[in-house]
Amino acid sequence: MAWVLSAKELQARQGRARDVLGHRGLAGLCLFGPTHIYYLTGFAFIQTERPIGLAFPRNGRSILFVPRLEEEHAHEHARVDEVEAYAEYPGRIHPMRRFAEICGDLGLASGGLGVDSDGYGGGYGYQGPKLSEVLRDATITPVRPMLEEMIMIKSPEEVAFIRESAKWGNLAHTLLQQYTRPGLNESEVSPRASFEATQAMVRTLGPTYRPLSWTRSGAHAGYRGQIGRDSAIPHSLTTNAVFHAGDVLVTGAGASIGGYGSELERTMIIGKPDDRQKRYFQLMLGAQETAFEAIRPGALCRDVDQAVMQYFESHDLMAHWRHHTGHALGMGIHEAPFFDVGDPTPIQPGMVFSVEPGVYVPGYAGFRHSDTVLVTEEGIEFLTYYPRDLEALTIAA
Amino acid sequence: MAWVLSAKELQARQGRARDVLGHRGLAGLCLFGPTHIYYLTGFAFIQTERPIGLAFPRNGRSILFVPRLEEEHAHEHARVDEVEAYAEYPGRIHPMRRFAEICGDLGLASGGLGVDSDGYGGGYGYQGPKLSEVLRDATITPVRPMLEEMIMIKSPEEVAFIRESAKWGNLAHTLLQQYTRPGLNESEVSPRASFEATQAMVRTLGPTYRPLSWTRSGAHAGYRGQIGRDSAIPHSLTTNAVFHAGDVLVTGAGASIGGYGSELERTMIIGKPDDRQKRYFQLMLGAQETAFEAIRPGALCRDVDQAVMQYFESHDLMAHWRHHTGHALGMGIHEAPFFDVGDPTPIQPGMVFSVEPGVYVPGYAGFRHSDTVLVTEEGIEFLTYYPRDLEALTIAA
Repeated sequence: MAWVLSAKELQARQGRARDVLGHRGLAGLCLFGPTHIYYLTGFAFIQTERPIGLAFPRNGRSILFVPRLEEEHAHEHARVDEVEAYAEYPGRIHPMRRFAEICGDLGLASGGLGVDSDGYGGGYGYQGPKLSEVLRDATITPVRPMLEEMIMIKSPEEVAFIRESAKWGNLAHTLLQQYTRPGLNESEVSPRASFEATQAMVRTLGPTYRPLSWTRSGAHAGYRGQIGRDSAIPHSLTTNAVFHAGDVLVTGAGASIGGYGSELERTMIIGKPDDRQKRYFQLMLGAQETAFEAIRPGALCRDVDQAVMQYFESHDLMAHWRHHTGHALGMGIHEAPFFDVGDPTPIQPGMVFSVEPGVYVPGYAGFRHSDTVLVTEEGIEFLTYYPRDLEALTIAA
Repeated sequence: MAWVLSAKELQARQGRARDVLGHRGLAGLCLFGPTHIYYLTGFAFIQTERPIGLAFPRNGRSILFVPRLEEEHAHEHARVDEVEAYAEYPGRIHPMRRFAEICGDLGLASGGLGVDSDGYGGGYGYQGPKLSEVLRDATITPVRPMLEEMIMIKSPEEVAFIRESAKWGNLAHTLLQQYTRPGLNESEVSPRASFEATQAMVRTLGPTYRPLSWTRSGAHAGYRGQIGRDSAIPHSLTTNAVFHAGDVLVTGAGASIGGYGSELERTMIIGKPDDRQKRYFQLMLGAQETAFEAIRPGALCRDVDQAVMQYFESHDLMAHWRHHTGHALGMGIHEAPFFDVGDPTPIQPGMVFSVEPGVYVPGYAGFRHSDTVLVTEEGIEFLTYYPRDLEALTIAA
């Protein structure tokens, strides 16, 4: 198996995009977001100050507009009809002026034009005009919801990538648990587990393995600061903390496979868990079970979060509630839709979600497992499969 | 030394921001970009679907608006007068509605209001109104150039962080060179070098070390795919390539220190370099020397790129030119201004730049060094210090 998106997969996506453009009466699409461009063309790249834009007419030739330094790279990997390169940003002529001309040549300057954003939003020191300022006769139509609707239903190929990611995340997590012991710190244990899992993965998958992610390559597992008291900070950052007996730990693991990832998180405890730790751990497990039971095709995303909120309320846990139950994922670490009381999206087969209600006691500890599940016709299938019970997650002190 | 921004540093930044708001006649600032919020408040966080916004009046109390899961985290780290939390995104009431009310309470709803972007642009499945749609009476004024002008001049504290980053990037690169040999692949060598350098760094800097970066913690060195023929792809992604005798390699190294980084890149060759390799390597070195000589306070950024372009032209190298000479850096991997023919920004003491003209021969090899330099009153000071000559960068086959 080659660990890059197949031509067939990309062709199907482009066909669906053209269909949706037709239904919406739009002449074409302009995309600037790296994830959107990757989704439609298979071209993964490092985002910088230099804008990259895809001009994708409903009928006609697609053009990927890139800086000169990406020209050969794009030619090799982007499934588009043409690649056109500009010299540099800011350059003597602002690249967005030329991009507007390209859109004009493709007949996109005077019709309904779907965009993921009104111009390049890159950051990295970029400044430039909105697309609507350089393409004044086009009717710029935000279509992010349309793109999200396409992205939220995963194809079998996408599911295979996410499944493979979960496999190597599982190995990284196994090593993380094995190497964690009192006296060491996270900055030594997490990279070691990640490094060894990556080696095994690369040797196993062979030379066709591609992470196609810029920020992460290989498998990874770590703590990101959720150690001891800081386990109660749901989005802590790495603190270089030293492990001690009695610590509650919250982990995270996954792997980058062809631009896709997965999410595995576990609560672990160093040393024999005391009664208070056991109690919160079991309450957290109960919340996650409640979510698993609520996920089925036809239910709404908000139903799942509502069921979990009711669980929190009936167990007098609302003081320890900090976030919704989960999110879709795939190319993005977080994608729409969300298991959130405010998200009415119907749950459909092919969606992939994290399921991760957490119980947080400030100044004491936090408790969260996260599993990645695939929605099937019948209910859910687990893509992550690491043990979830306290006994398996207890580390010798 | 504590590896986080000092209270004094943050106070000075906020004072400067208030001064600039005064000169511009603006009532306050609203910031949504994680880097901008970190710059002004010291709060580093993981960006997700949940918007985070800073309301910063010229006169009055500043409020950081965060999702419930970041409340304790923000209380601990953000230098603001108040932290206000909303439940979740999307939630039953869209968070941007509440943020607009907060701005109203602070007197920002009806005056000139500087913003880094007109609403939260996060991605990760976020959708929401523009700030101008929920704060209809305010005069929304984009001030990204003003923020960039503040950020581009580094304080002594910032320079110390970047210098420390360069030190550990140097170690990671030393190990990378040491571990690279024919038969291994980058996915084994790069994480090993990064892992060991990170261990040494963490042990040396001690428990006050904080990366304050989400995507990178510790030191790192690697190839990101620029191996053999693919060294000619300036922004390749990791390809899992195996090293062979005769390969030209382009590296990258750095370390995350308190939210800051540095950039060290080297061209290395496996085995005795042949005449063609030597020739391009020396031409690349000459281009970089040309840039070093052109950087001085009072010159313009474009002058440096212009000098390098002239070097390329006079050495008949334009077919091998792919990108401008360099970029500012610090919190961002790329920041404004740019050593680019289109950037008229005057070079000033306190600016920190990468200097990295590259020579690329498609299908054959690419040649690029990148050094991080500080602009001083007299010229430049090197923050990176890895050997630059071919002999030191030749790896035994």
